[in-house]
Amino acid sequence: MINVEVFFLGTGAAAPTGKRRSPSIVIRRKGELIMLDAGEGTQFQLAKAKLGFCRPMKIIISHLHGDHVLGVPGLLQSMDLFERKEELRIYGPRNLKNFVEFHRKFFHIKTRFNVLIEEIEEGFEINEEEYRIIFFETKHHVPCFGVVIEEKMRRGKFNGEKADKLGLTPLMRAKLVKGETVFLDGEKIKPSDLIGPPRKGRKIVYVPDTRPFKGLIKYIENADLLIYNATFSVKDEEEASEKGHSTVKDLIDVLYASNVKLAVATHISNRYKDKESYLDGLIRVPSNMVTAEDFLKVLIPLPEKGGPLVFFP
Amino acid sequence: MINVEVFFLGTGAAAPTGKRRSPSIVIRRKGELIMLDAGEGTQFQLAKAKLGFCRPMKIIISHLHGDHVLGVPGLLQSMDLFERKEELRIYGPRNLKNFVEFHRKFFHIKTRFNVLIEEIEEGFEINEEEYRIIFFETKHHVPCFGVVIEEKMRRGKFNGEKADKLGLTPLMRAKLVKGETVFLDGEKIKPSDLIGPPRKGRKIVYVPDTRPFKGLIKYIENADLLIYNATFSVKDEEEASEKGHSTVKDLIDVLYASNVKLAVATHISNRYKDKESYLDGLIRVPSNMVTAEDFLKVLIPLPEKGGPLVFFP
Repeated sequence: MINVEVFFLGTGAAAPTGKRRSPSIVIRRKGELIMLDAGEGTQFQLAKAKLGFCRPMKIIISHLHGDHVLGVPGLLQSMDLFERKEELRIYGPRNLKNFVEFHRKFFHIKTRFNVLIEEIEEGFEINEEEYRIIFFETKHHVPCFGVVIEEKMRRGKFNGEKADKLGLTPLMRAKLVKGETVFLDGEKIKPSDLIGPPRKGRKIVYVPDTRPFKGLIKYIENADLLIYNATFSVKDEEEASEKGHSTVKDLIDVLYASNVKLAVATHISNRYKDKESYLDGLIRVPSNMVTAEDFLKVLIPLPEKGGPLVFFP
Repeated sequence: MINVEVFFLGTGAAAPTGKRRSPSIVIRRKGELIMLDAGEGTQFQLAKAKLGFCRPMKIIISHLHGDHVLGVPGLLQSMDLFERKEELRIYGPRNLKNFVEFHRKFFHIKTRFNVLIEEIEEGFEINEEEYRIIFFETKHHVPCFGVVIEEKMRRGKFNGEKADKLGLTPLMRAKLVKGETVFLDGEKIKPSDLIGPPRKGRKIVYVPDTRPFKGLIKYIENADLLIYNATFSVKDEEEASEKGHSTVKDLIDVLYASNVKLAVATHISNRYKDKESYLDGLIRVPSNMVTAEDFLKVLIPLPEKGGPLVFFP
């Protein structure tokens, strides 16, 4: 699986509707799941999307409002029921540990897998072999963190045709890929002779609950996918401001200024009965923005293979 | 609304499936809602069933396992978002208060309505004007309570035809209904002259997680509707015994012995992909038993108007 897939499991805001569930988004990359927020009922959406409970997984909780974290206890319990063995890491603001520990004690959740909770702060970074996750604080009523998930540069394309022509053995090819020089009939062959320049990875940015703020653009610039909690329509700007949220117009403003390939507006208030009422009042809806629905899926190919594709449920 | 309606919002057991949500059943009676258990995600099912967040309501939590109570914090939060004013009573075993209070503090849920939590014990009773709710302890791994919801006797049928023939005024009719004697042209007319014998109310029994036990029948006898958490198929009897649960065979055994009009098997393990595999191994499925599905609805007319009706979703 070379494509990165992004599953919108829950696309509602705090108040429930029959149509949108609590916030949760799952990124699947090479068999690993990265979950962004886990509102109440996330485990059912995860089951429905058939994403599995036992895969390598990180859960990132943007902030400690109920609709973003109430799904965690049930997830832990179900992972254990499904006999998860693999360690689970949960990242979130200060106090996340209290929340999880209360439930583990109260419900006697003794998981057979290790649960590691990391309480994060501005600038916190997760550094994996192939990607990094950078946290940045948003402007909400409580500490709230957005994330930039960025793949590291990948090695350049291996010129298989040229290797065939030269008659390189499999061992030689492997060495070149590892960065070693090889000799063929006394002739020196360097990796750069067969391997192109390093290639860009993908960038996904999650902007959770926030007021628009200066400095956001530097995080989202050049993203392949921007996921933005744009709770209100432009007509409800006043309420957005009061409640520490964004309107879809705030999203569009940064979208125009940031060279983002695709933006998905999510975390949408229950008051909008359809897409039309949510988008009402906008002069123009950018062609690279979509309004999320539960079980919307975005597929992000490698950059050299083209831009993101949207699959409506 | 003279009919009592019973909505099966969630009919699964602990492990999630894409098809069955966590346990919750709502009884609607004359505009009041009585909720039996509130597993994770109940607020969304309630919204989907359009039952409302601001009605007079009681929540009864049978026991403190996550899949039966994790929906409570979100319900409180959403009721407040929907501007509920009416007091809410929540009944459940010892420690329920801790659970609710933790979440109220952690998420700063300052509801504008009063939340009253009653921690119950065997024999606890709620005595309302028109019905009573009696709690009985089941045999589970933790304290777990079933409930008998029983309407009190209603006054007899008023003989309108006879009243017309006698020429009774509206005031006289009202007095007779209140139990007073009236005089018409000097002749004494007693309530019993126009009002038939008291009429039976309805009885609904909820048997939550339990092993079968002697003494259960006395609670369920003559019920109009028996809701029974029969988690396993008869083939998984061993696991049922281990986990403190019932099989569908346990339900059928008491059903045959108790003059119940209709039984609904619910709280069904995620392992059964369809009704057939759940009922597999039974010699016969009683005609007055159905297997629950999310959003199954049962309508219970007044006893003199006939038996319960089942509406599949």
